[in-house]
Amino acid sequence: MHKQLKVAIIGVGVVGSSVANILERNKDIITARTGVEIVVKKGVVKDLSKKRNVNIALTDNVDEVLYDNEIDVIVELMGGIDQAYKIAQIALSQSKAFVTANKAMLAYHRYELEQIAKTPIGFEASVCGGIPIIKALKDGLSANHIEAIYGILNGTSNYILSKMTKEGWSFQQSLESAQNLGYAEANPSLDINGKDAAHKLLILASLAYGIDSRPEEILVEGITDIAIEDMEFAKEFGYVIKLLGIAKKINNSIELRIHPTMIAQDRLIAKVDDVMNAISVMGDCVGESVYYGAGAGGDATASSVISDLIEIARGKSSQMLGFKTSQSFGLIPQEQIISRYYIRILADDKPGVLEKIAAILSHNEISISTFLQKPNNQNLNQNPKQNLNNQGGSAKILLATHTTTEYAIQNALKALESLEVVRAKPVIIRIEA
Amino acid sequence: MHKQLKVAIIGVGVVGSSVANILERNKDIITARTGVEIVVKKGVVKDLSKKRNVNIALTDNVDEVLYDNEIDVIVELMGGIDQAYKIAQIALSQSKAFVTANKAMLAYHRYELEQIAKTPIGFEASVCGGIPIIKALKDGLSANHIEAIYGILNGTSNYILSKMTKEGWSFQQSLESAQNLGYAEANPSLDINGKDAAHKLLILASLAYGIDSRPEEILVEGITDIAIEDMEFAKEFGYVIKLLGIAKKINNSIELRIHPTMIAQDRLIAKVDDVMNAISVMGDCVGESVYYGAGAGGDATASSVISDLIEIARGKSSQMLGFKTSQSFGLIPQEQIISRYYIRILADDKPGVLEKIAAILSHNEISISTFLQKPNNQNLNQNPKQNLNNQGGSAKILLATHTTTEYAIQNALKALESLEVVRAKPVIIRIEA
Repeated sequence: MHKQLKVAIIGVGVVGSSVANILERNKDIITARTGVEIVVKKGVVKDLSKKRNVNIALTDNVDEVLYDNEIDVIVELMGGIDQAYKIAQIALSQSKAFVTANKAMLAYHRYELEQIAKTPIGFEASVCGGIPIIKALKDGLSANHIEAIYGILNGTSNYILSKMTKEGWSFQQSLESAQNLGYAEANPSLDINGKDAAHKLLILASLAYGIDSRPEEILVEGITDIAIEDMEFAKEFGYVIKLLGIAKKINNSIELRIHPTMIAQDRLIAKVDDVMNAISVMGDCVGESVYYGAGAGGDATASSVISDLIEIARGKSSQMLGFKTSQSFGLIPQEQIISRYYIRILADDKPGVLEKIAAILSHNEISISTFLQKPNNQNLNQNPKQNLNNQGGSAKILLATHTTTEYAIQNALKALESLEVVRAKPVIIRIEA
Repeated sequence: MHKQLKVAIIGVGVVGSSVANILERNKDIITARTGVEIVVKKGVVKDLSKKRNVNIALTDNVDEVLYDNEIDVIVELMGGIDQAYKIAQIALSQSKAFVTANKAMLAYHRYELEQIAKTPIGFEASVCGGIPIIKALKDGLSANHIEAIYGILNGTSNYILSKMTKEGWSFQQSLESAQNLGYAEANPSLDINGKDAAHKLLILASLAYGIDSRPEEILVEGITDIAIEDMEFAKEFGYVIKLLGIAKKINNSIELRIHPTMIAQDRLIAKVDDVMNAISVMGDCVGESVYYGAGAGGDATASSVISDLIEIARGKSSQMLGFKTSQSFGLIPQEQIISRYYIRILADDKPGVLEKIAAILSHNEISISTFLQKPNNQNLNQNPKQNLNNQGGSAKILLATHTTTEYAIQNALKALESLEVVRAKPVIIRIEA
């Protein structure tokens, strides 16, 4: 007879069912690897009448598990912020270990939970489902000062950008394909606006740098404005566009940002396509290491949830409490972030336009490294004679800048947008070497 | 005042110096992350007169540390097999924890050490220097049955194959470049003959499958026979050639092999170039995850050594003892390994040759999926008229087979080699889908 670790799962949806089923299916190795039998005593669901493919007792009363002294670990897989946070607080106050995949809740309440926790908190599944990046940062890279993290943290966005790059599909086509394949929700906004990635980046930045910020405090831009010509520009200059979460230590302060990024096409994370996730970590001893895998999916996420349960079962969880590392760094204010920028401007195709644009950039002390102008194909008439003239037509101006500040670029963008000859808000993509 | 963990380093070369220096340089975070101060009490060297760039006490008497009751951990970085194994035995018998980067010693003696160990054994640094793959297998993927491992486990070989693929350099040119850059030893045989990779694969296969074999018992082939035309054939059919360590579970037995491999060019490990290492692990829950980083180098390897020391300092090392997992699988005999094969045959360019080759393959029940024949360029005369005839010339026959057994292919190779019209031992490269 093995010792038992008794678990309750709150939220028995896709991931919750996988956790219950894998604990049963892989019981042999899990018990052998821990010396402890991990048993799901009960699952908590909203709707008991819904048919579920699990072999565990169910209840719709969360208090039944939160106040059950037999239960050692609460696994929270219900999602949402406020209710999940309350449950976490109760679980920890009841001296239960707490395991969660809830990135949104942790993005807001991780330090509050840390303060009250006397039992382990496991959150491997909260960042990039199947990639053991939390344990890599806590254990594998524990000798290193972390210099930077570059993460493809959202599979839906990566799928869309991959299809735009490789197949030449439009944003809309790519999004619809993602939805058809079940990679994107009917309402995909959290995925494509960068917020989901921001939640994950904040968790990683807590571990690496002790950053105590909330999603609203960091630079977050999504991929909805990216167009095919941006892909073409990137390709021409040796880049690939990825939605990256970036954390970088600069003079003992930290830059945190999520945005579409042009990265050199020969970097390994530039080659991570479709719905997969990957995180590149730069350590002062180890150099670059990259962790790649499934970012979502029931079984992949359950694999990480169970790895936390195994760590708890092994009694190795003394270090699982902390989000803060040894050092707490400050955040670099957004306007001081330094980068190179790609800018796409849709403007009237007439004399003097370029001069006005150049004047604005120069006024903001932004210097141009690369410049491309072409007639806006979408407005082109089928008759080539008329096109030569392009009377009243528009032009796309694509350019890349040398290094400048976010402050300068945002001022320049405002000025550009207010030019009468500029027809739409310019689109920027930051460039990482 | 923090609690101290006292360490002795046996072998203060490149990696040993890095360990000592990083423990000093990153003392702040290491102490904060563990609550314990990790102190190098002494280093053991062969030659005390040699100048070393470390700030630790040195001795040339190994017994001074092995029998010092104050020392908690022996870090063995001297290399070699017999002497290192003796030191490991004494360290463990003296109830000291033992941390090593010595893959060769572990490839032979890991289970013997496990049997006597009552204190932790750390060996993160023994496989792929800076990649925390041991912890990934033990902790991150602990919920999974491991279905397969594909590893680029030797940086020197990967550098050579990358240069042959990307730059079109010959094997010899690429090897010389690796030597000039310090990636390969003056005597590079262990790297290019696959033995170094075999040591690492055996350690991984112990963790994943409890495999208790020695390097001599598994299929090991190096990269010395690879030629540029193999790269070209691979490219034409969508493959890249990598030296892979492969462990695969098939019907509850395990295939273990190291050899040059044609893998599909769109797999992430196909894109790992130059001196970098990467390991792809297939888990039954998590799917594919890939771990990428530096395979060697002082600081990268030291990062892994220190991660083991940190795990010991945290007292989380109860699970560090075991090489065996829950299950012990048997090895599939080499001749029963199943694969697709690429074969390169240098033969006389005259009528009837192809018929003879085809007859041998058919006799061994090997069927051909792809076939290419071309005149052997190296023998070509500058005068195209003479080439048309290629009188007395040779031809290169490149072909790929459908799935067959190692038994069949080895018999076929012997028969092919004995044909009078075949001018050299045929070269094979196994193909993985």
